[in-house]
Amino acid sequence: MTHHMRDEITQTVKKIKSMEIRGAANIGRYAAAALKAYTINCDARSRDEFVRGLEEAGETLIDARPTAVSLPNAVKFVLRRVRDSDLSLEGLKELAVRSADAFIENSRQAVRTIGEIGAKRISDGDTIMTHCNSSVALSVIKTAFSQGKDIRVIASEARPRYQGRITVKQLAEAGVPVTLIVDSAVRSFMKDVDKVVVGADSIAANGAVINKIGTSQIALAAHEARVLFFVAAETYKFHPDTLVGELVEIEERDKKEVADPGEFSGVDIRNPAFDITPPEYVDLIITEKGVIPPQAAIMIIKEEFGWI
Amino acid sequence: MTHHMRDEITQTVKKIKSMEIRGAANIGRYAAAALKAYTINCDARSRDEFVRGLEEAGETLIDARPTAVSLPNAVKFVLRRVRDSDLSLEGLKELAVRSADAFIENSRQAVRTIGEIGAKRISDGDTIMTHCNSSVALSVIKTAFSQGKDIRVIASEARPRYQGRITVKQLAEAGVPVTLIVDSAVRSFMKDVDKVVVGADSIAANGAVINKIGTSQIALAAHEARVLFFVAAETYKFHPDTLVGELVEIEERDKKEVADPGEFSGVDIRNPAFDITPPEYVDLIITEKGVIPPQAAIMIIKEEFGWI
Amino acid sequence: MTHHMRDEITQTVKKIKSMEIRGAANIGRYAAAALKAYTINCDARSRDEFVRGLEEAGETLIDARPTAVSLPNAVKFVLRRVRDSDLSLEGLKELAVRSADAFIENSRQAVRTIGEIGAKRISDGDTIMTHCNSSVALSVIKTAFSQGKDIRVIASEARPRYQGRITVKQLAEAGVPVTLIVDSAVRSFMKDVDKVVVGADSIAANGAVINKIGTSQIALAAHEARVLFFVAAETYKFHPDTLVGELVEIEERDKKEVADPGEFSGVDIRNPAFDITPPEYVDLIITEKGVIPPQAAIMIIKEEFGWI
Amino acid sequence: MTHHMRDEITQTVKKIKSMEIRGAANIGRYAAAALKAYTINCDARSRDEFVRGLEEAGETLIDARPTAVSLPNAVKFVLRRVRDSDLSLEGLKELAVRSADAFIENSRQAVRTIGEIGAKRISDGDTIMTHCNSSVALSVIKTAFSQGKDIRVIASEARPRYQGRITVKQLAEAGVPVTLIVDSAVRSFMKDVDKVVVGADSIAANGAVINKIGTSQIALAAHEARVLFFVAAETYKFHPDTLVGELVEIEERDKKEVADPGEFSGVDIRNPAFDITPPEYVDLIITEKGVIPPQAAIMIIKEEFGWI
Amino acid sequence: MTHHMRDEITQTVKKIKSMEIRGAANIGRYAAAALKAYTINCDARSRDEFVRGLEEAGETLIDARPTAVSLPNAVKFVLRRVRDSDLSLEGLKELAVRSADAFIENSRQAVRTIGEIGAKRISDGDTIMTHCNSSVALSVIKTAFSQGKDIRVIASEARPRYQGRITVKQLAEAGVPVTLIVDSAVRSFMKDVDKVVVGADSIAANGAVINKIGTSQIALAAHEARVLFFVAAETYKFHPDTLVGELVEIEERDKKEVADPGEFSGVDIRNPAFDITPPEYVDLIITEKGVIPPQAAIMIIKEEFGWI
Amino acid sequence: MTHHMRDEITQTVKKIKSMEIRGAANIGRYAAAALKAYTINCDARSRDEFVRGLEEAGETLIDARPTAVSLPNAVKFVLRRVRDSDLSLEGLKELAVRSADAFIENSRQAVRTIGEIGAKRISDGDTIMTHCNSSVALSVIKTAFSQGKDIRVIASEARPRYQGRITVKQLAEAGVPVTLIVDSAVRSFMKDVDKVVVGADSIAANGAVINKIGTSQIALAAHEARVLFFVAAETYKFHPDTLVGELVEIEERDKKEVADPGEFSGVDIRNPAFDITPPEYVDLIITEKGVIPPQAAIMIIKEEFGWI
Repeated sequence: MTHHMRDEITQTVKKIKSMEIRGAANIGRYAAAALKAYTINCDARSRDEFVRGLEEAGETLIDARPTAVSLPNAVKFVLRRVRDSDLSLEGLKELAVRSADAFIENSRQAVRTIGEIGAKRISDGDTIMTHCNSSVALSVIKTAFSQGKDIRVIASEARPRYQGRITVKQLAEAGVPVTLIVDSAVRSFMKDVDKVVVGADSIAANGAVINKIGTSQIALAAHEARVLFFVAAETYKFHPDTLVGELVEIEERDKKEVADPGEFSGVDIRNPAFDITPPEYVDLIITEKGVIPPQAAIMIIKEEFGWI
Repeated sequence: MTHHMRDEITQTVKKIKSMEIRGAANIGRYAAAALKAYTINCDARSRDEFVRGLEEAGETLIDARPTAVSLPNAVKFVLRRVRDSDLSLEGLKELAVRSADAFIENSRQAVRTIGEIGAKRISDGDTIMTHCNSSVALSVIKTAFSQGKDIRVIASEARPRYQGRITVKQLAEAGVPVTLIVDSAVRSFMKDVDKVVVGADSIAANGAVINKIGTSQIALAAHEARVLFFVAAETYKFHPDTLVGELVEIEERDKKEVADPGEFSGVDIRNPAFDITPPEYVDLIITEKGVIPPQAAIMIIKEEFGWI
Repeated sequence: MTHHMRDEITQTVKKIKSMEIRGAANIGRYAAAALKAYTINCDARSRDEFVRGLEEAGETLIDARPTAVSLPNAVKFVLRRVRDSDLSLEGLKELAVRSADAFIENSRQAVRTIGEIGAKRISDGDTIMTHCNSSVALSVIKTAFSQGKDIRVIASEARPRYQGRITVKQLAEAGVPVTLIVDSAVRSFMKDVDKVVVGADSIAANGAVINKIGTSQIALAAHEARVLFFVAAETYKFHPDTLVGELVEIEERDKKEVADPGEFSGVDIRNPAFDITPPEYVDLIITEKGVIPPQAAIMIIKEEFGWI
Repeated sequence: MTHHMRDEITQTVKKIKSMEIRGAANIGRYAAAALKAYTINCDARSRDEFVRGLEEAGETLIDARPTAVSLPNAVKFVLRRVRDSDLSLEGLKELAVRSADAFIENSRQAVRTIGEIGAKRISDGDTIMTHCNSSVALSVIKTAFSQGKDIRVIASEARPRYQGRITVKQLAEAGVPVTLIVDSAVRSFMKDVDKVVVGADSIAANGAVINKIGTSQIALAAHEARVLFFVAAETYKFHPDTLVGELVEIEERDKKEVADPGEFSGVDIRNPAFDITPPEYVDLIITEKGVIPPQAAIMIIKEEFGWI
Repeated sequence: MTHHMRDEITQTVKKIKSMEIRGAANIGRYAAAALKAYTINCDARSRDEFVRGLEEAGETLIDARPTAVSLPNAVKFVLRRVRDSDLSLEGLKELAVRSADAFIENSRQAVRTIGEIGAKRISDGDTIMTHCNSSVALSVIKTAFSQGKDIRVIASEARPRYQGRITVKQLAEAGVPVTLIVDSAVRSFMKDVDKVVVGADSIAANGAVINKIGTSQIALAAHEARVLFFVAAETYKFHPDTLVGELVEIEERDKKEVADPGEFSGVDIRNPAFDITPPEYVDLIITEKGVIPPQAAIMIIKEEFGWI
Repeated sequence: MTHHMRDEITQTVKKIKSMEIRGAANIGRYAAAALKAYTINCDARSRDEFVRGLEEAGETLIDARPTAVSLPNAVKFVLRRVRDSDLSLEGLKELAVRSADAFIENSRQAVRTIGEIGAKRISDGDTIMTHCNSSVALSVIKTAFSQGKDIRVIASEARPRYQGRITVKQLAEAGVPVTLIVDSAVRSFMKDVDKVVVGADSIAANGAVINKIGTSQIALAAHEARVLFFVAAETYKFHPDTLVGELVEIEERDKKEVADPGEFSGVDIRNPAFDITPPEYVDLIITEKGVIPPQAAIMIIKEEFGWI
């Protein structure tokens, strides 16, 4: 990669790692945008050079965070089209740009569609719990609210990074009545909750949902209380490698996010950023293709990516 | 109450409310100590005046925090003895002092005895999860460790007041290998846990355990993973009023403990300080009289306080 | 038995069989009253003759309905006192009358006490489900309502005898907002219910509750939805014979209560009048001695009747 | 619509509403038959007029009962073929008639096929429970019986409309040993049951089964007792709109079906006619395409109606 | 101990270790008999010498097998009486003999009483599963059979020692219809079983049952199928040390019982002889004092041995 | 069939029945090999004669053991190709040979592929439990071990035929640390297990797994302990007839495998060789097409064999 390109990709990687760019959908879109910017600025002089550079850029992006599959799926979306084409260099570059734009636009449209589908499952009078800060989960909630449904939201703070605080601010700005609680209070408030709506970083072939640490605990409490647990997830959140047995890697982030290790000598601090919700605690996955039970995740993966 | 007495009681009440005095056992002992100090400084000129003043002092103390039954049980321990006596004023005052001392000493002995009993249930190689900062739960863990058992502890931070940080420091000082995690990570780490040991603020007639917010969530995750869940509780943590149907009041503390309301306009913040763990998630309650299943809490209450 | 006595006892037996006298508490009290009337009218000329007659009367009463243990317990309450006494004939008769009166008054007081204890477990805003027509369960509900708590009740109709219709009328007369549903709709409405309160015909040594057919199904649906399930039961509803392994007989009543067999040739019709709710679906039993978990039924039986 | 047509459609709508025409399969077939009759009597003078009239007729039919999806699916079956065709008016009318006939014949064949498939899952010596009066569930039972299998049936009465009484008469006429019980006795008899077989009004994308009120309670009791729970359902009972998040409307029928409101002043009476059985309580759905687990309902919907 | 005494005790220890003396009740009785024989042959010349020798003999016996608490409880039964007495040497020896005889007779009577109580819970037509070879469980089964109840038994073989083969022979001799299966087939046959009846080597303070390896697996399968699981256990099977937190030691026996290690080089062989059934899988414990739920084990322990 | 052919087929049938040829994959391959040998030795003089003979040979093979569907699937694999072809006699014979070879090679490749996919789900440090002696389950374990993962295996002995002993020898030879236990000890050791891996004789349309007796008990214990339960199964283990409702026949083998009936007069001995694990206890099925949840078995069956 040339200097300029390296900068573009490097900046995006850095922002993803520092969580300046956050949220699985967002990460996917920024990755696509980075490939677009890379392409535009690319001074490769041959098809091969361009493709190799783009592949390298893609790999660099994919390494930024291991858990959200939207990242490799966005990269593959662009790369597959470029690799499969026999266009000239210029044609390829246009295709790369168009593909990146298509991914971004598809992603935005998917968020809107899921918001509309999911809103049908939200009833007037519902109290909804959410966790962390998922744009697609909020799309469901806001769409229902904008339809005039009388709903309220309970959001857990999502230690250690407090993304729940972002969520309550966004909902309060939208006028949705919202309550902030600590993560430990989830089970205590579950008796007042009608439905849980969360997003996903990845969905495995067996319907397991990989999402922000704490999600599986909420799913368990919802299951115990027989509260419906909905996952809002675009189809590019489904993880093709899980079909061949791969496990989704759970990123473990800096201990400092939890507590200053300097103040806790002799104490180990652990900070896994995600957890795995087993399919038996998931009632529905809301995708832009329709609502499915978690056991049908394999259908989506097969249709989108094929068998082995 | 005279000025001096008022000061003594008021100081203790204030410290309990601000959580300078924390922990159900501690609160009970400080309440007894406050009654002792009150008695010593008391310038009442008749038996009746003394008893009325002591009762008033007791009620003031009881109002300091509603959830931990060690507080009213400590006060009743002293008052019952004084009320039932026909000694002279001086005799009564001596009795009050002796009773307060006895409560404190019984409490300390109970913590040691429970430590010894509970340690027998901790095996070499065990990983133990604990929550918040319970002296009697730590007594179990430290006793097991001091017996040379190779154990490690995982402690949740216990937002919003982070008492888990006190716990990990105390354990690290004692040399126990200990790991600090956020409350949301409890279920993720449960697969590595052999036993959970927590304390209790109150135990109800049906064996339900009232303890720091988050406890019931840990109990649920332990139950799901079939990890043993032990509650360490002196008999003065058993709540007599629950026998006649009273519910234990769950204290709701200042919103500021969770987040600064000024920064979150339009957002409700809720901060219940305790939750209720149902008996079906409790494997054993370790008391100074022996280990009992939660369904036998009624036996303890009947023996300590009688039927209606 | 002489003619007059026979009449008195026979009338009560007949009314119990036809369900003119209904409800376990009521059946117990009417049995006591019948023994009193028998005693008053009794022209026995010796202690022995009187006792033999009273025993015979007691056995006749006990045979009237097999499931409600209040019936034999009421008879035994009177007979035990008479048998244990060495009073003269007149003294014995007075004792029999006093004992019958005592049973009736104890029973009434127990219903009031249970109403007061149980009402503490009913919160403002609660929706309560009940089944059949239990005076002691209604005592809990009405006491809570009379304390100004804003509650509503959902009552199942209790086919085949529709005792639920009596319940809704009694509650409507008391001003309690009440909804009538068919028995099949219990699970559909459970999501709106906070607590279930029912009575009992018998409680076994293991805490199993024998009550009107349909009760165990409601308990199951409550358990599924994690709705609290309370049984209101005076201590004379606890069944001593279950301690020695006896099973409580489930009365099977006339097919005609279900449908006219004449219209359904070739069809068997079955009509068991009671069912058994296993202890794991019962959260609390509310007795006049206090609230207990079902596993403590054995404590009540041991205290009231002793070990074998 | 002209007068004659209006009559034809109106008569069918009226009979469906009054439950003279009952049962999801039947409702679908009568709707098809009504469209056929409408077509035959139709005096439209243009293609457009005919199609508009047919669509209007279809909408009128669909409004007759909201829960059974066989009704809109039957109407759509006919209308889709007519709309997709470019035949002349006469051709279109013939097509409408043929399509209506095809729906009716397919439906009849599906009921027979399901009977044959389902009968393979019924073993000699089985006791089968059923609820309400489902022709396709009875097809399974009768086919097994006609194969010489020694089976018996327990049928709940299905208050408030007592369709269970129709079921026991039909089975008794067919020679099948059958027992009638009240709905409250379902759990009591479950210990004697080997399999439950019921029909469905609608099946949702997640495999949830919408059927006569009481079905979900039976499913729960079967699940508790680990009794197999089979749903017999033709593919036109699968609900396409649930894929896009729509909830199936639960019809609430006249209070008078439960009790005469005049006699119960101050009492609310509720009468939902259907309930929802969650997929985790359904072992198999028997369709004319084969037996599927409930989680594969989405496969049927996708194949029959496609993704969004 | 003198040579003769040593022989007597040593012989019993040897037979217990080799399982020539088997079964928890039997082991307890033989231990008592050994103490009696020791006493009779004892040539101690002082009270102290006799008591010390008896204590030593008791300890030697207790070490023979660690899991069955009937062994230490039998020894303590005799020793406590001897220690608490101030009789002369001859008197003490007579007391020791009488105490040993009393233990043996109490034990025999307890087995008969439990047989009678337990038989009431066996119904005509029942199929009963049992495991290993428990005399008190067989007492329940044989008593029910001798009452003319039409029952059959399914017995698992109880690898590695095949005690199930002894059970089926004993039952066949008594005329009870009985089926032998491999231990792996337990769950497959559970659908035909109405009740499980097993014995116990020890019962812990929380109601957990320690019994032959495989018992907990049967309890789990019974729980899954909602088959009643009964434990027949005399009160001397309740383990007092578990009240103070002690765990019951699980004996691990010779690998050769499983397979010849010589033939399996490189393979570890493990042979724990007992397992622990958690109280939630036990419906009733049948003692000679009455039937109790497992949660009431603590009541028996408290009454028999007192609190700490 | 001519004499020679009959021999070839008969020998294979005999070896399958006596379990000289064991294991579902092996049985399938030997059946294919037998058809190949039959074809090579076949002296049929016409296409029809050959096909009829081959069909007869296939049926004979299929009857050898009823439970493993690999047997009919292997036969159908060859026969379908032959029947669908219009080649000449010689061409047909060549096709039969090629088809048999293809089945065998596909089967071997599937076992390797499943080993590679499944190994990805085995983590360093895992303890794996297996049952019986499944080549494809061992392929998963050995592949993981050969990748350098530090794993150990616990194998149950699999009475009555002790195939577990073969398994531990094979694993020990491969250097895998392995422990042998009796089948009754499965639940006791489950607390040390991370994953269970077993094979399958047949997989039904609802995802139920038919495998060696004892498998469902292990699955139940794994489910209780929340240990992952994996089934390794090639797609020819999926049972097409279950789609149309057929139940998989459970072979009951000779009583002598359990115990010598001669020694147990009056005792029935039962010996079912397989059991059925319900889909809710299966986490993943590992096929050569990818890993699927059990609910997606219907997808495999539909793709491999089509709807009815």
